[in-house]
Amino acid sequence: MKTTGKNGPLVAIVIGSPNDAPRIKDAMDTLESLGIPYEVKVLSAHRTPERLSKYVEKACSSGVRVFIACAGLSAALPGAIAGLTTLPVIGVPLSGSTLGGLEALLSIAQMPKGVPVATVGIDNAKNAGLLAAQILGLLDNALEEKLRAMREHEKNKYDLP
Amino acid sequence: MKTTGKNGPLVAIVIGSPNDAPRIKDAMDTLESLGIPYEVKVLSAHRTPERLSKYVEKACSSGVRVFIACAGLSAALPGAIAGLTTLPVIGVPLSGSTLGGLEALLSIAQMPKGVPVATVGIDNAKNAGLLAAQILGLLDNALEEKLRAMREHEKNKYDLP
Amino acid sequence: MKTTGKNGPLVAIVIGSPNDAPRIKDAMDTLESLGIPYEVKVLSAHRTPERLSKYVEKACSSGVRVFIACAGLSAALPGAIAGLTTLPVIGVPLSGSTLGGLEALLSIAQMPKGVPVATVGIDNAKNAGLLAAQILGLLDNALEEKLRAMREHEKNKYDLP
Amino acid sequence: MKTTGKNGPLVAIVIGSPNDAPRIKDAMDTLESLGIPYEVKVLSAHRTPERLSKYVEKACSSGVRVFIACAGLSAALPGAIAGLTTLPVIGVPLSGSTLGGLEALLSIAQMPKGVPVATVGIDNAKNAGLLAAQILGLLDNALEEKLRAMREHEKNKYDLP
Amino acid sequence: MKTTGKNGPLVAIVIGSPNDAPRIKDAMDTLESLGIPYEVKVLSAHRTPERLSKYVEKACSSGVRVFIACAGLSAALPGAIAGLTTLPVIGVPLSGSTLGGLEALLSIAQMPKGVPVATVGIDNAKNAGLLAAQILGLLDNALEEKLRAMREHEKNKYDLP
Amino acid sequence: MKTTGKNGPLVAIVIGSPNDAPRIKDAMDTLESLGIPYEVKVLSAHRTPERLSKYVEKACSSGVRVFIACAGLSAALPGAIAGLTTLPVIGVPLSGSTLGGLEALLSIAQMPKGVPVATVGIDNAKNAGLLAAQILGLLDNALEEKLRAMREHEKNKYDLP
Amino acid sequence: MKTTGKNGPLVAIVIGSPNDAPRIKDAMDTLESLGIPYEVKVLSAHRTPERLSKYVEKACSSGVRVFIACAGLSAALPGAIAGLTTLPVIGVPLSGSTLGGLEALLSIAQMPKGVPVATVGIDNAKNAGLLAAQILGLLDNALEEKLRAMREHEKNKYDLP
Amino acid sequence: MKTTGKNGPLVAIVIGSPNDAPRIKDAMDTLESLGIPYEVKVLSAHRTPERLSKYVEKACSSGVRVFIACAGLSAALPGAIAGLTTLPVIGVPLSGSTLGGLEALLSIAQMPKGVPVATVGIDNAKNAGLLAAQILGLLDNALEEKLRAMREHEKNKYDLP
Repeated sequence: MKTTGKNGPLVAIVIGSPNDAPRIKDAMDTLESLGIPYEVKVLSAHRTPERLSKYVEKACSSGVRVFIACAGLSAALPGAIAGLTTLPVIGVPLSGSTLGGLEALLSIAQMPKGVPVATVGIDNAKNAGLLAAQILGLLDNALEEKLRAMREHEKNKYDLP
Repeated sequence: MKTTGKNGPLVAIVIGSPNDAPRIKDAMDTLESLGIPYEVKVLSAHRTPERLSKYVEKACSSGVRVFIACAGLSAALPGAIAGLTTLPVIGVPLSGSTLGGLEALLSIAQMPKGVPVATVGIDNAKNAGLLAAQILGLLDNALEEKLRAMREHEKNKYDLP
Repeated sequence: MKTTGKNGPLVAIVIGSPNDAPRIKDAMDTLESLGIPYEVKVLSAHRTPERLSKYVEKACSSGVRVFIACAGLSAALPGAIAGLTTLPVIGVPLSGSTLGGLEALLSIAQMPKGVPVATVGIDNAKNAGLLAAQILGLLDNALEEKLRAMREHEKNKYDLP
Repeated sequence: MKTTGKNGPLVAIVIGSPNDAPRIKDAMDTLESLGIPYEVKVLSAHRTPERLSKYVEKACSSGVRVFIACAGLSAALPGAIAGLTTLPVIGVPLSGSTLGGLEALLSIAQMPKGVPVATVGIDNAKNAGLLAAQILGLLDNALEEKLRAMREHEKNKYDLP
Repeated sequence: MKTTGKNGPLVAIVIGSPNDAPRIKDAMDTLESLGIPYEVKVLSAHRTPERLSKYVEKACSSGVRVFIACAGLSAALPGAIAGLTTLPVIGVPLSGSTLGGLEALLSIAQMPKGVPVATVGIDNAKNAGLLAAQILGLLDNALEEKLRAMREHEKNKYDLP
Repeated sequence: MKTTGKNGPLVAIVIGSPNDAPRIKDAMDTLESLGIPYEVKVLSAHRTPERLSKYVEKACSSGVRVFIACAGLSAALPGAIAGLTTLPVIGVPLSGSTLGGLEALLSIAQMPKGVPVATVGIDNAKNAGLLAAQILGLLDNALEEKLRAMREHEKNKYDLP
Repeated sequence: MKTTGKNGPLVAIVIGSPNDAPRIKDAMDTLESLGIPYEVKVLSAHRTPERLSKYVEKACSSGVRVFIACAGLSAALPGAIAGLTTLPVIGVPLSGSTLGGLEALLSIAQMPKGVPVATVGIDNAKNAGLLAAQILGLLDNALEEKLRAMREHEKNKYDLP
Repeated sequence: MKTTGKNGPLVAIVIGSPNDAPRIKDAMDTLESLGIPYEVKVLSAHRTPERLSKYVEKACSSGVRVFIACAGLSAALPGAIAGLTTLPVIGVPLSGSTLGGLEALLSIAQMPKGVPVATVGIDNAKNAGLLAAQILGLLDNALEEKLRAMREHEKNKYDLP
């Protein structure tokens, strides 16, 4: 059980289209600022199911411990990954539809019993990165400490009583 | 190009749980009343993606021409099948959630560009069966005739002007 | 049973207002790229019901095999066409209302039992074109092959595992 | 311009299915209690468009002055009638779907510009009957007086200040 | 019973704020093009209930036959007027809120039993004007004829079959 | 400025129909348990606007300090009262519609600028009673103390850390 | 029981982020125009719960009589303050999310029984300021008079009957 | 870093009311079947914030690694816990409101940036238990193996291709 990814990334961020790349910047920044190695892949639950399947298998065996999947509309990607692994999968609903991403939020959160996806808010890639870090923090005291320090640091933006 | 399924069913109805079986009765009745051979399979986009993939491939090669997939909640099943074939896929959103199946309707209809699902109304398995028949009617003049006769027959339930 | 439309288009795209013309471009492009002859008509379920009725009858008898109807707001057009023919009718909900097209999606999908409309996503004319092609592909092996090639081609935009 | 329907009803209530008959009882009771002659027809925008068209034409020429149309789901009936006449058409959205009739309300209210439907609340057939009476009251001083008396009478159910 | 308003307008358009004036232009244009006299008043159900009450009484006695009330948000104005008269009241939900006017639509349509409001679509002042004209057309054969001509004229914008 | 209502109730609870009486029981129980005098009136914003107006005036002058108004559907009652007084008005949206009271919640909360209603949750008459008590507690140290004691008492239902 | 805040503000406005400052301007303007002393604090229910707790305690003991809390998204701030005091807490849902602030409105209004929040409309800081003034008006005849004058003044923007 | 909870539970399930106990049964059953020690606490974000704060601190220091918080309506509990720890917090929206738990889902998922909650579906306590197990599986190879076996076992309920 390692806490730094010697042979590869600890977090895999999967998006369904290259166009979605800017929307995961907050997740990437968060992971980078915490020193968590990650990789980004563009794969589709609908167009490349077999590539997705192979990738998830490969990622699991090469040290990835948490998946982050971002998707809009039907947003099948997070659930598809969750069906391929028993590692934790974090889902980020993306807006962009005329419904403000509501359908993506519902689609990602309302998974059938037995295949959980850890859903965060619409377009909230930052929280996805942080949640991944919190999960990895269970394996890594230093990381846990960084998260606590980051949380403390945030408080200074607020008024004193 | 055959219009009757000599070697097997023309329509494949896929549900995500044996519990959903009663909810496709209207589709089955419709197909039966029109003499269209079909089969029903219980497969899950999330739990059995590889079985689903194999089944779709097998079904396509053995003569299935239209898929009907029924699902509630995240309702990934119709889209997953649509990603595995270029045959027409009809999706039936199922209610049962506390949101009345709205999430299933949105999830099935709001597919990404390039992977269409022909969505019918919530719990409207009958329309899924009819739509499958209408599609198959393009291959089969006798079936098309039956559909027209059925439509005419329905009118007799209504008042004359 | 012909697979190319010798005497006319195979797909009829119907919109309710000339203003909606730009919104079906994706459907037109898709059909053109696949070599499927189509025509576009501007007709209204509410304003020109009898013209619509005559057009549908004429289109059916002159070789149209699939209808695509696009509408916003109450979005009665797809259902009205579906009531006039037993050919497959694809409905495209259009946004533009202050509700993001949700009412059009619900209106098109939630058809009464007996009169199905194959609903695609809001503003997703591309999927309407593809679904029409998938249906026509049942009549035309070459078209089916093109659809499979197009699907394969799309995969190259995605990462390898 | 007559205020009692010598040759026939002044109000035509149209429902899309015989099953909907109990749901218009409040409208019928209201019209009866006000002495307004009416008739009830079962016709479908989707299944019997030509019968609907003939009926509306016949009703208009035989003295009907206001239409009440009740429908659930896609609820195309009120709009279809409104497209066939320039007489006032009142639409009653019916619940019964898993979405509580929201889709019917949106579908009936969100008509395109040029074809109005006077929408009342979900399942509120009573208000449809009253609105029809208010409209007819413009033609009939005695009826207008009855409506005012009924309104006054209602006040007695409430507390005095 | 008169069909032209000798002593004043036949239609009263009431808005809740001077800012809403541009949003009723379609209603005004429609009434003007049909030669129907109308007046516009700025009154509030919440801020000026007693002025509203007096105005409605005065308007009724001076020949107004139909009210059109436009409101956003809670949109109490149409219902408030409907509570003050038994003449027909048409309600126009206005958008402008972050919810796209959905709350105004629900608020205006979902009136309690006994106090109907004829609701039209969100921001659809044109249909409010037309509906008022249709109602007044029951009193005025020439107006009814104009409405039919206008409807016929509209058809020419559409394709012939 | 008195803190007990010598000449009458401090809180006026207004409902729009006698049928709503059971739905305010929690508010009544809360006020009674805190020793706050109140009265209940059945008045309608739509059917009895002038009675409502007179009652609000009378109540204000006879010592009422806070209004609680409960309403479903369009739910105009709380706003109507708020337009008649500058005393605080608490609105309780009632469910019972097929939309679960969502329209009542939106209608009561989304008041125009200048006429606030203090909205509590759907069917949450208890919170209306408590909020009234909290407001009156500003005038009455003993009541404020009771509220604090009640809050403390509630804590004993919860686990200790 | 004092009506002017000798030792400090009577109203505490709490926002969850410095970025929300412009959104409470209407509340500040309203309180200022009425001569009600207030203070603004930036505190977070999630990031600074203990600071929030200390602040609420301190504010209560130093003369604050009403809280106004503004929040978007999950919008926990108003409820968190309501759990820390038995003084009245007014909640302002902020838009800014892709859902138009609907989730904030629901979150603030749908509090559990026992912990009320007086919810106003989305982004309606003005009504929050007014509601606070109405509550404080119970303690201050001059303020109550100002509110009545302001209400009267508003009427002059409206048409006379 | 331990993988079995020598001194206490690894998962803390927190509910806001004793009445919610039956609704977490699926989470408890899942954790038990996987041999994961847990404890259940009844604490309220609004009524017992300080107890909640102390409990979270104590739980963290005594070996709890994952929190599961279940709440309906405003559903502040999961977010409140997430604000008190940097351990992963899983939120379960509970239905029971007239809105089907939609407000709880939105409230739990739409957290502000910086304080993530891993949201699962409405009433889907089973997925919360499984997600907790998946997270703990990163610390415990045997548990990870059990999860994989459980997933494999589930497949036998489905049809073979």
